[in-house]
Amino acid sequence: MRAILHVCTTCRAEAAAGDDPRPGALLHDALAGAALPDGVELRPVECLSACSQGCSVALSAPGKWTYVYGRLTPENATDILTGAAAYAATADGLVPWRERPVIFRKQSLARIPPQE
Amino acid sequence: MRAILHVCTTCRAEAAAGDDPRPGALLHDALAGAALPDGVELRPVECLSACSQGCSVALSAPGKWTYVYGRLTPENATDILTGAAAYAATADGLVPWRERPVIFRKQSLARIPPQE
Repeated sequence: MRAILHVCTTCRAEAAAGDDPRPGALLHDALAGAALPDGVELRPVECLSACSQGCSVALSAPGKWTYVYGRLTPENATDILTGAAAYAATADGLVPWRERPVIFRKQSLARIPPQE
Repeated sequence: MRAILHVCTTCRAEAAAGDDPRPGALLHDALAGAALPDGVELRPVECLSACSQGCSVALSAPGKWTYVYGRLTPENATDILTGAAAYAATADGLVPWRERPVIFRKQSLARIPPQE
């Protein structure tokens, strides 16, 4: 089992135009600096098109539901990785509700069915 | 080239609890009653987890970026299908900005990179 954790590095969140580094890049740095769970691969991406709900991340893997979460900060890095590990451990991406970090329960932006 | 157009049939949008049929089901009915473009397959799905931004749809296909759109109504059915046709015709899911329906430019909830 595995999962790709996509992190939008261009998210501005509440930052002013021109702020550098952007909040999305800071979130990516926080995740990259932590110990990645088994089976989770971190990938920076320029824009997840969730700009009004940034910072945002997405979890995807072949044969699994895809999930997108928003309104995240670097302080959420540990919870994001906990949630990513639970996702990676599933066959279909569906983590039981009570086993999801609170940020994943309350800050879902979308989920998309698996591709064949 | 092809695309799956997922339509959330449980979206409530502004409807009151208990309203039946739900706005998401009405959006699905509007799409199902129209002529589907070549290469586009319509699939109902129970909840795209974009509840606060419904009604919502998602476009996905192997090897392509996935897109999720929200705040849609049955009146948007023709534009949704126009946008789905343009998406289906691409190799990677990236439709040039000017060729996207306005609802797809302004009502994106998220996009997710292709799976390998």
